[in-house]
Amino acid sequence: MRIGKLVVVGVGLIGASCALALRRAGAVGTVVGVGRGQANLDAALACGAVDRVCRLDGPWTTEIADADVVLVAAPVGQYPALLGAVAAVIGDDTTVTDAGSTKEDVVATARVAFGARFPRFVPGHPIAGGDASGAAAASATLFDGRSVVLTPLPETAPNASIRARSLWEACGARVVTLEPAAHDRIYAAVSHLPHVIAFALMADFAARRDAAELLAHAGSGFRDFTRIAGSSPEMWRDIALANRAALRTEIARFRDALDAADALIAAGDATALDALFGRAAAARRQWRDVLPVVDDGS
Amino acid sequence: MRIGKLVVVGVGLIGASCALALRRAGAVGTVVGVGRGQANLDAALACGAVDRVCRLDGPWTTEIADADVVLVAAPVGQYPALLGAVAAVIGDDTTVTDAGSTKEDVVATARVAFGARFPRFVPGHPIAGGDASGAAAASATLFDGRSVVLTPLPETAPNASIRARSLWEACGARVVTLEPAAHDRIYAAVSHLPHVIAFALMADFAARRDAAELLAHAGSGFRDFTRIAGSSPEMWRDIALANRAALRTEIARFRDALDAADALIAAGDATALDALFGRAAAARRQWRDVLPVVDDGS
Repeated sequence: MRIGKLVVVGVGLIGASCALALRRAGAVGTVVGVGRGQANLDAALACGAVDRVCRLDGPWTTEIADADVVLVAAPVGQYPALLGAVAAVIGDDTTVTDAGSTKEDVVATARVAFGARFPRFVPGHPIAGGDASGAAAASATLFDGRSVVLTPLPETAPNASIRARSLWEACGARVVTLEPAAHDRIYAAVSHLPHVIAFALMADFAARRDAAELLAHAGSGFRDFTRIAGSSPEMWRDIALANRAALRTEIARFRDALDAADALIAAGDATALDALFGRAAAARRQWRDVLPVVDDGS
Repeated sequence: MRIGKLVVVGVGLIGASCALALRRAGAVGTVVGVGRGQANLDAALACGAVDRVCRLDGPWTTEIADADVVLVAAPVGQYPALLGAVAAVIGDDTTVTDAGSTKEDVVATARVAFGARFPRFVPGHPIAGGDASGAAAASATLFDGRSVVLTPLPETAPNASIRARSLWEACGARVVTLEPAAHDRIYAAVSHLPHVIAFALMADFAARRDAAELLAHAGSGFRDFTRIAGSSPEMWRDIALANRAALRTEIARFRDALDAADALIAAGDATALDALFGRAAAARRQWRDVLPVVDDGS
């Protein structure tokens, strides 16, 4: 399947990398990039991800009507405005998909925005990224061997689902499907919670009187543990608020787990602490062994 | 400075890597490895880190008397027994140093064990490692460009301090000195707390009914965040208990920081959440920019 015209709304790391990957596969003709800032749009042009660009404060929706696929890859907080504008002008065969990290809220927003055209929208979430943001960090290989979750609804048009799946497979990704609620529950645990922990820890360190001394002594464990704290604040603010209920459940659950570990330390219970750390290490090592050896360096 | 005979008590990742690095530098003659398990001792022999080995349940202390340097690189929970045995047989010019991740407790143990010979002991902590344990994972390059903290006391013999410093510099490391209490306070924050968080999170995930589904969806952010949860449970149990007071202060402080982030999420305070995440991201990016680009792959 070849996409004649692709419009990427939000040509950041994900959107621009998707365009580069489709070009690599020879799977796309024209790519139009839409975004807020001229500097990032210039970077998207410079790296060859897009053929031309439009600013969001200009008449960008004129590019949508004859698009085969529209990929929305902006922070989810912008979706109400963006999806409404897209929905108003799409053609009957246009497929709209997205790259947002939350799905229940996106589906709810899309239902309102698209109305009768909701079957044209295929909710998606590529499990790739990095702490570097923007088109300047884009790579044609970002999705190689990575997962992309699609959360199609019963109403979603089969040809739209097939097209979204083909797009990500052409990017080198493995496509899996989930219910939106299952997606949000799972990613609250394995992604959103770790980000909130890393952000909270790093912000606290930065505010200390002895921040410079602490950070001067931090090593590779701290480096990897906090890598995700360098991620886009706006993107993660939107994710945290959009998936608030599931995320807060995970925060509460983690707080209990941390309190339990703290109680063992306070009690000096070496046996129970050894068992706790041992269960964690065994699970982490087993998981590492089954994880596909694909490292995006992020 | 060349070390004629080095005895490494605990030839795990750190001890065996130190021996390999000293060999690479031509800075050591004979290396004797002492350890608990025959399989790991065999691995230390196989990788060329040691010339011969002794088991801890055998007459290993006969190797100590004519050693120039003894490096204790075992879990800190074993120190009372190990330092006592070493102290009883060291020569007048033997330097004893260690690689333990906590220092106040090690110094207290060493004072008791060494008595009048305490000046021969130079407390140390190489800031290197990895989630892989044991001599089989050892590398001559593990310490290249990394820091090693020494915490000499006023009583420590100057020639012992110089020898310990030279040893680590020959391994490619940069040596810094700290007071033991400052060391423990700093590493409680930048190392021990992140390990407890990662262990607690990973153990909780592993215990869930849907553990397999969660871990099947985890990506590179989770991979890096939880890497340290694959570390040695015994080593980290000992660290957590040895540095209990400073660590619990950090756990309490982090809990407050997490609660504050949770409160912003609960309140839907997008502005404050953006500011919090922004402070974290700015600090993390600035730290990454100043960190020496030395990646041990761990």
